Amino acid sequence: MDKTFIWDYDDTLAWNQHDYCYAQVKFLRWVLDRLGPKAPDAQTMLNMEVGIDHESVKAMGFQMERFPTSFRETYHRICQKAGIEDPVGESHAYDIGMLAFDENRYWGQGLVEGAAGTLDFLVAQHDELILLTKGDERVQRKKLRATQLNKWFGDRMHIVARKIQQDITDIAGSRDPNKVWHVGNSFRSDVKPALKAGIWMIYIPYETWAYEREHDDDLTAEQRSRLITFGKITDVRDNYHLL
Amino acid sequence: MDKTFIWDYDDTLAWNQHDYCYAQVKFLRWVLDRLGPKAPDAQTMLNMEVGIDHESVKAMGFQMERFPTSFRETYHRICQKAGIEDPVGESHAYDIGMLAFDENRYWGQGLVEGAAGTLDFLVAQHDELILLTKGDERVQRKKLRATQLNKWFGDRMHIVARKIQQDITDIAGSRDPNKVWHVGNSFRSDVKPALKAGIWMIYIPYETWAYEREHDDDLTAEQRSRLITFGKITDVRDNYHLL
Repeated sequence: MDKTFIWDYDDTLAWNQHDYCYAQVKFLRWVLDRLGPKAPDAQTMLNMEVGIDHESVKAMGFQMERFPTSFRETYHRICQKAGIEDPVGESHAYDIGMLAFDENRYWGQGLVEGAAGTLDFLVAQHDELILLTKGDERVQRKKLRATQLNKWFGDRMHIVARKIQQDITDIAGSRDPNKVWHVGNSFRSDVKPALKAGIWMIYIPYETWAYEREHDDDLTAEQRSRLITFGKITDVRDNYHLL
Repeated sequence: MDKTFIWDYDDTLAWNQHDYCYAQVKFLRWVLDRLGPKAPDAQTMLNMEVGIDHESVKAMGFQMERFPTSFRETYHRICQKAGIEDPVGESHAYDIGMLAFDENRYWGQGLVEGAAGTLDFLVAQHDELILLTKGDERVQRKKLRATQLNKWFGDRMHIVARKIQQDITDIAGSRDPNKVWHVGNSFRSDVKPALKAGIWMIYIPYETWAYEREHDDDLTAEQRSRLITFGKITDVRDNYHLL
């Protein structure tokens, strides 16, 4: 047990983004059906929903309610503009947003291709595996259970409201930072806090959520020297000798 | 027969925009299913499709092929970025775009609420009704047939590739421009050419397609004096005494 790997979860070990996209597509279709010609075009509605969702990260963070609330608010604004009152529809819009958190999807989807083999490999090296995911405790617990992560992580699984440097510093604790890697897909939520915390960062980019794409690439040369970018999760195993 | 009304068709007499939106929603859902985690998020895909479609108006105009081509091109670029080759998928993407031109939808949808009564009213006034729509001849002919417009317009139905001032000037011919009105929903494709042609314009705004929303409102005072804006089609009948 020489190295420590702190793993991100969503879109690193398990795909997550598309749970939201399926709900968005269902929402668009539903508004078109419900409002007919009074519905704005699909692009206008989707950009509105993403804008509202993104904006409300400030107030609501990564709580489960944020996403369905953005559907309700989008539908409310569309109705307002069209001079319609439809509280039943608003409530249904919220329910469509909740489909993103359907536990059955988590069970059906499993882990990213190559994830299990990579984690098995690290266990075989006697390295330490820790999970650190941001998000809503209620949602993340269900996901971790559905993808049976306790097999590799035991009880070393942490759920935080936002992932900031302090979270990583706390978890790294008294370990030699030269022996600690964070593995994640987001520049904003993984790369920056990990490099600020002074550990290594293995970045496997998958930033499909606009929120995560927003980043100014203002790393110092020292931080850059601790950043490794891989194309896929199995590269962690295949390039283990470089770490 | 004192007045002449030159009617626009799409989104003035019959809803049209949402034929495209339903196809877009189907496309998003299909790419998510086909590419799984390699699909970009829904917002990225939809904005890409609209951007490509809009851009290609320059080269392809309002030909039917433009819209399905934008689906094929969007899917092609997504695959390219993901390092995938999928010519079968590209062809299917095109077919999804073609769903926007499903003749059964035209039959099912009929005219905008109040359109038939408004046209009936003008016929009863012995006014002259002419139709002027831009678009693909093959598509527009099907729509006009499905909504049985010959009842009001007989053979006075013109389909043009783009609606420009000259089209309106040609149709107005030797009529007194003070007795000629164009009725349409688009600033770009109806208001501007009609006012440039020196006739009256009745604008019933419904600009859900980004292409039509792009307009710099640079009318002269004289042009502005010939512009009437109504909230709905029946206002043409209800305010007839003002015309």
